[in-house]
Amino acid sequence: MVSGRIVDTNAAWLSKVLTAAGATVVSRRTVGDDRAFIATTIEAMADCCDVLVGTGGLGPTSDDLTREAVADVIDEGATIVDEEAMATVEAWCRDRGLPMSEARQRVALRPVSATLVANNHGTAPGLCFAVGDTQGWMLPGPPIELKPMVTDVLIPSLTAQGVKSQSSAEVLVAGMSEVQVADCLGDLLKRDRRPQVGIRVGSGLVRLMVTDVDGLAGAVGVQATEVALRQHLGPWALPVGCVSLAQAVAEVLHDKCQTLVTAESCTGGGIGAALTEVAGSSAWFVGGWVTYTNALKTALLDVPEGLLGPDGPGAVSQDVVEAMAVGARTRSGADLAIAVSGIAGPDGGTPEKPVGTVWIAVADEAGVDARHMQYSGDRGVVRSATVRSALQLVRWRVCGVEERLWQQV
Amino acid sequence: MVSGRIVDTNAAWLSKVLTAAGATVVSRRTVGDDRAFIATTIEAMADCCDVLVGTGGLGPTSDDLTREAVADVIDEGATIVDEEAMATVEAWCRDRGLPMSEARQRVALRPVSATLVANNHGTAPGLCFAVGDTQGWMLPGPPIELKPMVTDVLIPSLTAQGVKSQSSAEVLVAGMSEVQVADCLGDLLKRDRRPQVGIRVGSGLVRLMVTDVDGLAGAVGVQATEVALRQHLGPWALPVGCVSLAQAVAEVLHDKCQTLVTAESCTGGGIGAALTEVAGSSAWFVGGWVTYTNALKTALLDVPEGLLGPDGPGAVSQDVVEAMAVGARTRSGADLAIAVSGIAGPDGGTPEKPVGTVWIAVADEAGVDARHMQYSGDRGVVRSATVRSALQLVRWRVCGVEERLWQQV
Repeated sequence: MVSGRIVDTNAAWLSKVLTAAGATVVSRRTVGDDRAFIATTIEAMADCCDVLVGTGGLGPTSDDLTREAVADVIDEGATIVDEEAMATVEAWCRDRGLPMSEARQRVALRPVSATLVANNHGTAPGLCFAVGDTQGWMLPGPPIELKPMVTDVLIPSLTAQGVKSQSSAEVLVAGMSEVQVADCLGDLLKRDRRPQVGIRVGSGLVRLMVTDVDGLAGAVGVQATEVALRQHLGPWALPVGCVSLAQAVAEVLHDKCQTLVTAESCTGGGIGAALTEVAGSSAWFVGGWVTYTNALKTALLDVPEGLLGPDGPGAVSQDVVEAMAVGARTRSGADLAIAVSGIAGPDGGTPEKPVGTVWIAVADEAGVDARHMQYSGDRGVVRSATVRSALQLVRWRVCGVEERLWQQV
Repeated sequence: MVSGRIVDTNAAWLSKVLTAAGATVVSRRTVGDDRAFIATTIEAMADCCDVLVGTGGLGPTSDDLTREAVADVIDEGATIVDEEAMATVEAWCRDRGLPMSEARQRVALRPVSATLVANNHGTAPGLCFAVGDTQGWMLPGPPIELKPMVTDVLIPSLTAQGVKSQSSAEVLVAGMSEVQVADCLGDLLKRDRRPQVGIRVGSGLVRLMVTDVDGLAGAVGVQATEVALRQHLGPWALPVGCVSLAQAVAEVLHDKCQTLVTAESCTGGGIGAALTEVAGSSAWFVGGWVTYTNALKTALLDVPEGLLGPDGPGAVSQDVVEAMAVGARTRSGADLAIAVSGIAGPDGGTPEKPVGTVWIAVADEAGVDARHMQYSGDRGVVRSATVRSALQLVRWRVCGVEERLWQQV
């Protein structure tokens, strides 16, 4: 991971769940596959914390060196083959008809004084050990193996040792920039305010976290602050419990018993993909079209050819995106349709319609509402911003909110 | 970032480009928004390196403390308002019709002895400073601002100071697990081999990096190793220069002048979204359908109703996915069509068709080829694995490769 070829998603998740459980994350490091460096890092970090949790390097390949490095720190390098772990590997291989290669046997090794943490989703067990007064945990890297071990073993262990989860609340904001949110909230974000409100940006949302840093506000104080934040933010705050804009859309459509179809051009299917991330989306999501060419816009969504011809306004226009939305709604029989048409770049821009020009339209029984957007950024940014704006527009249409979309012209 | 609510993608990118430029990344840490902790971390890390690069904390909100922390380390806390930076902020706000709030002015502060690094995509300049013999760089967090500053200022500066980029090569593998790749490559992965081959997993691909760690192999030796890797891996290795499976698909379709449509059910549009990530995809991608309901499969793709009825094999079957592919190809006139139909979960599984059961079919002039897949994992895993398998199937169909897909039943 040090060379940067993969992104560390475990660190974020681990920090989040450990903080929620009541631990204070004081430090986070990433180290390369170097046995000596892993060992010195374990020693250095163990000096500064009560619990040290590491991930990765427990697999079967020759650059998986965590077991050896931990052994260097606590057992002068001594490792033994754990019989139970070996039996587990053999059974796992047998069940899958895979050979017991030499590589696979490495995962059954452990430092002499370490104990194993069972892995129910893979062959490599985790390690639990002591470095002086510090508790050490080394767990597998693949999230599907790591997460249950953290949730079912590590965190209950911390709780049993007296770590109390801290009151906190999260408010997610869609459709405003971080600075706009900061300007909106003013003094609520002052560092010395208690409970404290932190502000971050991630996954296209602004994330506000209310934390009872000194333990004095309690759940009541935290909730009062959450209420204040929601009052300030109005329709830009996602409902309680919604972890994504797509989930917020799912909830309003479900509540109002409305069905939705998509008609996508520049997003290529990204809006449908985002909507169907939500489990149970088949209750309100009917399907959609990806009309990437002008011919398909006409053939599949009845967009008049003239609009797309040399004398027409062109594919990226109010007329065309409205026709896409109305056509999708008519052809599918759904209650709502969302359509987008734009120039994601890097090519295709003109002085009149530069890269980042996108039209978004939502159609329902009452009519059609189109918005003209201008995004700054590369192809990926324009597409993801379009997906988010489209989701927001559906959400607000169903809720009856009349507001400008962020980056609307 | 320490609380885990956002994932650090900058660290991976930064490590990658700095390593490619010839630097050796020895350490990587993540710190919370705590002025004192940031300062002590800068001091501690500066002891162990020649160049220290940090990101984040340069924005205008009250928890952006990097400027102050750096000033604590190098100027006993003294900061001044940089006139040029202030003028830039004022102009940026004027151009966008935004107010000059107090928050925005904070970005024009700098430690007295630091110099500024111009930011052409935002208001917050970066900082360049010295901590003893160590060169320090603090740059904005948002990737769109960070990347040009690194590429256009930091790396040229390192090169000018004599840092020589190292020979390296990357081979990406799609459709094999990390252990399968390791078993395939055998001794090529031995840690003491020169040049050295490292193996990682990320974004659904296995990533092999050939690095001239001792500088003795040179570009010739690195290339010879790359050739050997490609010989072992055959069609599972992505072509040179392809950074994603979607790009590999784009290249073969472009080379063979073939057009493609998609017919998606459980993936909701994710295949189309992946394909259109590639710039210029309109040259070969026509569009597609997201037929999330059975009614739409029949209405839009001519899937016979009987197949979807109580006496039929059901939506997740060879017959239906083949009908979807053929229907999409016929209705669009495209050369190829890829269709998927499956059970992503968490609901919808049965003993005969558990969660993770997916059928994928590719149709072209010669006929249709369907594969039965069984994935393990949650909804997100099943959907992303399906997208990757579908891309692989298209790629191999066009290239004439006949192999089993990973996780094919």
